[in-house]
Amino acid sequence: MNARSQSSTTASMVFEHDALAQRVLFGAGQAADYLSAEVRRLGAEAVMVIATPTEHELAQNICAGINPVVLFDDIAPHVPVDKAERARVVAAEHRVDLLVSIGGGSTTGLAKAVALTSGLPIIAIPTTYAGSEATNVWGMTEAARKTTGVDARVLPTTVIYDATAVLTLPGALAVASGLNAIAHGVDAMWAPRADPINRALAGEAISALARGIRAITADPSDLAGHEHSLYGAYLSATAFASAGSGIHHKICHVLGGAYDLPHAQTHAIVLPHVLAFNASSAPEASQRIAAALDSDDAVRGLESLRRDVDAPIALREIGLAEANLVEAVELIMPVIPPSNPRPVTEEALYTLLRNAWSGEDAEHTRM
Amino acid sequence: MNARSQSSTTASMVFEHDALAQRVLFGAGQAADYLSAEVRRLGAEAVMVIATPTEHELAQNICAGINPVVLFDDIAPHVPVDKAERARVVAAEHRVDLLVSIGGGSTTGLAKAVALTSGLPIIAIPTTYAGSEATNVWGMTEAARKTTGVDARVLPTTVIYDATAVLTLPGALAVASGLNAIAHGVDAMWAPRADPINRALAGEAISALARGIRAITADPSDLAGHEHSLYGAYLSATAFASAGSGIHHKICHVLGGAYDLPHAQTHAIVLPHVLAFNASSAPEASQRIAAALDSDDAVRGLESLRRDVDAPIALREIGLAEANLVEAVELIMPVIPPSNPRPVTEEALYTLLRNAWSGEDAEHTRM
Repeated sequence: MNARSQSSTTASMVFEHDALAQRVLFGAGQAADYLSAEVRRLGAEAVMVIATPTEHELAQNICAGINPVVLFDDIAPHVPVDKAERARVVAAEHRVDLLVSIGGGSTTGLAKAVALTSGLPIIAIPTTYAGSEATNVWGMTEAARKTTGVDARVLPTTVIYDATAVLTLPGALAVASGLNAIAHGVDAMWAPRADPINRALAGEAISALARGIRAITADPSDLAGHEHSLYGAYLSATAFASAGSGIHHKICHVLGGAYDLPHAQTHAIVLPHVLAFNASSAPEASQRIAAALDSDDAVRGLESLRRDVDAPIALREIGLAEANLVEAVELIMPVIPPSNPRPVTEEALYTLLRNAWSGEDAEHTRM
Repeated sequence: MNARSQSSTTASMVFEHDALAQRVLFGAGQAADYLSAEVRRLGAEAVMVIATPTEHELAQNICAGINPVVLFDDIAPHVPVDKAERARVVAAEHRVDLLVSIGGGSTTGLAKAVALTSGLPIIAIPTTYAGSEATNVWGMTEAARKTTGVDARVLPTTVIYDATAVLTLPGALAVASGLNAIAHGVDAMWAPRADPINRALAGEAISALARGIRAITADPSDLAGHEHSLYGAYLSATAFASAGSGIHHKICHVLGGAYDLPHAQTHAIVLPHVLAFNASSAPEASQRIAAALDSDDAVRGLESLRRDVDAPIALREIGLAEANLVEAVELIMPVIPPSNPRPVTEEALYTLLRNAWSGEDAEHTRM
């Protein structure tokens, strides 16, 4: 984000940017202290804690200084509507006035589903790099169909980032989650509502995440690595929420939904190919990404990071059949944002997917 | 803001950061369209426009699409309490439901004084790089005494940045205002509530401002230069509001108040010396500032910028007497933030001020 990383065009800046109000409390080992101070500050008297059974012990430690009236742990991926309904009933029964979510994207998502209808404030304490805690986006699933929306009520009032709460995440999952967070930052560079503020935040995020996941790869217990990753995940989610979903997330959403591919790995594999495809048509984004990755070139910088953290490189190794590629192109074409910096043809999209499928070096996807 | 610009220490990240909600609309020549759309969105029916007589014509053009019920133009620097009282009475008389300020820091400040007691929302349209529009800080003066405070009600709901509205600012004033905005960014690096988010925003701001004021120096009518300066002024004010006032602003506040020195010039002269003094004790800040100024060294980068934009270099040339330096040290010492990265002795502060007074190269203030 130095002078060289800015656009060299003279095109004028035109954008609308909505900054969201949120309190961020950051400190390793400080979640319990931060939480009790925040509960006092908000004047809450009936706290519902939301955490999965595997995070009961963590939740108990973090809640040592407060007295929750109820713990809700019936949580499933993608926030099924019936789980959300149950949580809403429990919250009403206990006259809850504050939600505290301790967990990853599914846990935060359930708290958001309760806030959506009740207006209850949320304190979110993330244990992954999913980033949901920094956005006003909610999602729920019913009969395998996902509905998403944007609502000011679901944005957590306060986020508490405590790197010791992420230490339980196995190293490989932490790296995959971090790469998923990098995808938020990269896609924010050219998403429909991308603007210089989002790009600046995304650049800072990518830099912190690259540093963080390299450290975690070397030593999964490296606390500073988790801190940098949490910090980067927060900023990349902020940028992504503001910029909207770009071509990368549209591709991964289709692939994940239609072929049941694992979320984080799909992102890690597809991202360098999307970047290679867009790079020449998005010079400011490329320069910012390259600078964030401490490289002269964005694509080479991301390929180098991918090698360093031993990320998966081929969709064929995570369950996609070559025979699906033509259909995938048909499913993806209609949802590609018209604002994508480079026009996308069916042929180009096929090549991009084919390269991601076979595990080609992303250099070949520059086309 | 690349990897090199990050701290190389392993000290853990601990901070509290409050992000403020604000809508930013950015586009040259678009203020009138943005304003009428915003007035509709907010459902306002009785708008009070606040603008000085010299900006009547500009205000008329920008308000072409709305029908204000009243124009208030009795504005003076530093928001005298009696002007604020008059404006509050006028707003009440006209049952105003929205304030629109079009002007520099004094105009925005008057709108804030009205909002402070009435809770009325503000749409701010800045015509300088003062940055007040991006903060929740208010200030008023009574009998030459300035009172300041922080209140959520004074943060403008929406800011409209239109570079054509800054074109009326004479070139030398625009550069001085831009240097003042750079001082917000630099001081945010080590102010009492400085955190990595503030530093990232400040780095982006300094980069954009340096580019912008260099362009304005070459050609005061350069619209892209004003756009980069406005963008940078917004981000530096955001960072400064979050981080609080650091040593640089404490020094300039004392000098301005006790010896009636001109505001922007004082900042421009003192800043390189404060940076030189702090640089070795604030490695992350120095690296970010250097990267933002496209230099290997923060102090040399700022000195180079100062030469390029022909900024004033000596306090003795803007009205400070050498005989005042000892007293100035006594006045400043008690207000230096304890969080300053380098401890400040009376001797060091005297040398810093003496160098700024005589116009020494800031290299000599590294000490």
